Amino acid sequence: MEKLAIIDMGSNSIRFVVMQIADNQSYSLLYQEKEAIRLGHGLSQTGVISEEGVQRALTCLHVYKHIMEVMDIHECRAVATAAVRNASNGEAFLQRINAETGITMEVISGEREAYLGYLGVINTIAMKDFLIFDLGGASVEMTLVRNGEAVHSLSVPIGAVTLTEKFGTQGNPDADAIASLMKFVRKKMAAVPWIQDIHLPIVGIGGTARNFAKMDQRATNYELSKLHNYIMPLDHFEGLYQEITTRTSANRKKIAGLSSERSDLIVAGAAVIKTIFDMTGSPEMVVSGCGLREGLFYEYYASYCHLPSPRFDDILDFSVKNFLGTLSGVIINQAHYDQVTRIATQLFDQLQPLHGYGPRERLLLQTAARMHDVGKIVNFYNHARHSAFMIAHAPLYGLTQVEQIITGFIAGFHHGISRKIIRAYRYANMASAEDWIMIRKLSTILALAEASDLTYEQIVTNVEVTLAENVAVMILTTTPGSTYNAADYEMKQLSKQFKKEFGASLLLVWK
Amino acid sequence: MEKLAIIDMGSNSIRFVVMQIADNQSYSLLYQEKEAIRLGHGLSQTGVISEEGVQRALTCLHVYKHIMEVMDIHECRAVATAAVRNASNGEAFLQRINAETGITMEVISGEREAYLGYLGVINTIAMKDFLIFDLGGASVEMTLVRNGEAVHSLSVPIGAVTLTEKFGTQGNPDADAIASLMKFVRKKMAAVPWIQDIHLPIVGIGGTARNFAKMDQRATNYELSKLHNYIMPLDHFEGLYQEITTRTSANRKKIAGLSSERSDLIVAGAAVIKTIFDMTGSPEMVVSGCGLREGLFYEYYASYCHLPSPRFDDILDFSVKNFLGTLSGVIINQAHYDQVTRIATQLFDQLQPLHGYGPRERLLLQTAARMHDVGKIVNFYNHARHSAFMIAHAPLYGLTQVEQIITGFIAGFHHGISRKIIRAYRYANMASAEDWIMIRKLSTILALAEASDLTYEQIVTNVEVTLAENVAVMILTTTPGSTYNAADYEMKQLSKQFKKEFGASLLLVWK
Repeated sequence: MEKLAIIDMGSNSIRFVVMQIADNQSYSLLYQEKEAIRLGHGLSQTGVISEEGVQRALTCLHVYKHIMEVMDIHECRAVATAAVRNASNGEAFLQRINAETGITMEVISGEREAYLGYLGVINTIAMKDFLIFDLGGASVEMTLVRNGEAVHSLSVPIGAVTLTEKFGTQGNPDADAIASLMKFVRKKMAAVPWIQDIHLPIVGIGGTARNFAKMDQRATNYELSKLHNYIMPLDHFEGLYQEITTRTSANRKKIAGLSSERSDLIVAGAAVIKTIFDMTGSPEMVVSGCGLREGLFYEYYASYCHLPSPRFDDILDFSVKNFLGTLSGVIINQAHYDQVTRIATQLFDQLQPLHGYGPRERLLLQTAARMHDVGKIVNFYNHARHSAFMIAHAPLYGLTQVEQIITGFIAGFHHGISRKIIRAYRYANMASAEDWIMIRKLSTILALAEASDLTYEQIVTNVEVTLAENVAVMILTTTPGSTYNAADYEMKQLSKQFKKEFGASLLLVWK
Repeated sequence: MEKLAIIDMGSNSIRFVVMQIADNQSYSLLYQEKEAIRLGHGLSQTGVISEEGVQRALTCLHVYKHIMEVMDIHECRAVATAAVRNASNGEAFLQRINAETGITMEVISGEREAYLGYLGVINTIAMKDFLIFDLGGASVEMTLVRNGEAVHSLSVPIGAVTLTEKFGTQGNPDADAIASLMKFVRKKMAAVPWIQDIHLPIVGIGGTARNFAKMDQRATNYELSKLHNYIMPLDHFEGLYQEITTRTSANRKKIAGLSSERSDLIVAGAAVIKTIFDMTGSPEMVVSGCGLREGLFYEYYASYCHLPSPRFDDILDFSVKNFLGTLSGVIINQAHYDQVTRIATQLFDQLQPLHGYGPRERLLLQTAARMHDVGKIVNFYNHARHSAFMIAHAPLYGLTQVEQIITGFIAGFHHGISRKIIRAYRYANMASAEDWIMIRKLSTILALAEASDLTYEQIVTNVEVTLAENVAVMILTTTPGSTYNAADYEMKQLSKQFKKEFGASLLLVWK
């Protein structure tokens, strides 16, 4: 077992996280603290980090150091970004930190900051071509990703804190102040020619982007309160941008979801995002809750586990495995999970003519199958429903938010579709009527696969389905000498549901 | 690690469960199967178990035996109840089971059946004085409990299956048939004089009682679909009884929640419960999902773990410990849980003049504190909300259903009250407006306790609160040489919430 502390000292906040890597290489977040130390305060005027800022940082770092001792943590990756990078007393400050707390903090370049943000995003959002921006207090890092590779990156020294100070956009900025701000931001961003008219989605990291997601979720009564991988369409952004740049400070604070400690900085932050939208011609912003810190972690993790690359090939597969790994002390029967996944996949493929679904639905079914029993951790009774909850909220990557909820629903019906379960679901409205038809069909397949391994001994080695008129003949090959009565009985219980969902009678033939 | 199989062969169903006892003595349910073999079918006419019944039982038992082998289970407690007890070929049948499957099944007396049901109830429902009835297919076991002790018990050889056959109440019984049935049941129940006019709650075990709970939950749009410990008032029962005994078979089947395989037996079952209500003068029926099988398990568990008694002194404490025990592979910091519980309790006691709550609320707070972080298993992010879900659905005993939901809500706010969390809650309407006031106050106390152990090192050894006019002075004694800045800062973040909930300013003094 290994523990790693990560400290990320930006211009606005300092963050401290502790990650744990278990002996089976599954990792989890153990601890997290955040403090708005506003290190960049006054920096754009004076060029130095103020003594007050230094003191606020030292106070936090003393506490973090102390927690590391309490938690017996020996590995620490501590990085400082734009504020320290730009301040003339930055180096001296880091030496002082080292002398007073023993923490060795490294100031990283804009390029490295961009790269780490890219690592945090590429391992947690399943997109191939997009633009990342990481908008902090004193800089914005931009990375263009093509086919999953970072092809360009640049750090532009403008940020929510420094711009706010420069243009006085806290309080009640007038139209002129906003116009000057916008003009300045446009000019600075013109230094990044490769974002012009790319018409790709933009992925936003940082407090400003997250706060926009939160405001949009509140405005649209979005049921799930999860920011990572939330998609905000351009017109929603434009609407909020209008509100933010025209309201008085007092009225701005009333915008639902706007964080009170960010209500001053949001104007300048909004101007940067607006400019990025304008220049790229992007249709939407995807918000990433993962960035620099996750990038630092993945880098460490890859090295610790001797992985060939800190970028994972299949982030969904990796995150499912990781989640199951964190539960390995309580998960009981991996062979059963594997078997149910294998049989469900075979059934999906064989029944393709009846459902017509493609690789995406296949993936959702497989993911549901891989995790169908995790709810047993909560309670054996009604565990399918608890699995639905856990899958919806687990740290899985590679699915959209709605796909993750849907995957939970599919698993929730792994003993058959029940009104009781539907009644108990939250977020049922997040799936469309069409989604629900798909959920019903896929969960019927999953329930059949589950029933086929009723005795937990993986007797079914192969499934073939022959489709005759209105009949699906399911030919199940079993291991020599095995007893299939129980599985046969259990699968037959699903005949009525099968007929309803697929419009065909189910006929089982055992070999 | 130990596994125990339990088989319970009744007149209507046969049930098979596998329990696991981990090395830390925490137990959990591993597997469960049920089959409606209707062993008692025809018994009241012929006096023997039919060859068809024998065959259905043997088919199931072969499967169960096979599963035991697959799961490598060597311990099995298999019992047969009234059908086998009453049949003239019962003994021969058990010998045949043994010869054909190797399973040694014991026919138990009505008294022992009643005792095991009592054990199942007394360890899972926190009541002291009540009457248990376990209504099966061929008998009803009655146990009078006074101050937690079983003071009388008796088995009466009438049950849902045998009565249905005797009075032909399947299908469309007319008023005369119902009247004859009721007259017969009353006469039989008159053999139990000690239930007369006891005016205590009745606790119902068995399929009929569970199905009444389900129908009532559907009729009242009860949000939670959990049957154990569900309370059904007399007038709700009377209403359903009317429907059940006057509708035609086709219309009866339309009653929401009525199990299709029980729609014939429910008439006779209803007559027995009606008679028990009438004779006892009870105000309500509490439904128990635990009975004979749980009793058998607790008996085994007590012996396996060398406990002085199969009856646990404090069932809430025991079930919380057991649940945490099942998670011990993933639960990280028991010392933190303990500290937060201790500090929350001290704060509750010291703030008593401000909130005026009593021992019950104290217990809910303590339970929330003991489990406040379990949601980290689902996801570190938003873990307070996930704790709320897990607490609401975990196998806890000793709380009412609503209390368990409330305990979850309290834990859900352990980082402070947030609108985001409230929006995300299902079952919020199950707590009354008054409950919500209590939840807010208790969760504020829990959040303070959590903040006091921010650094996970248990620095606070004692809390004393002095209440001056509109000010609560909280004097926190810490371990020598400890650093309390972080805890101080974190607790102060809750000042506004504290003021709102308790109407007093919070002043922290550190010693």
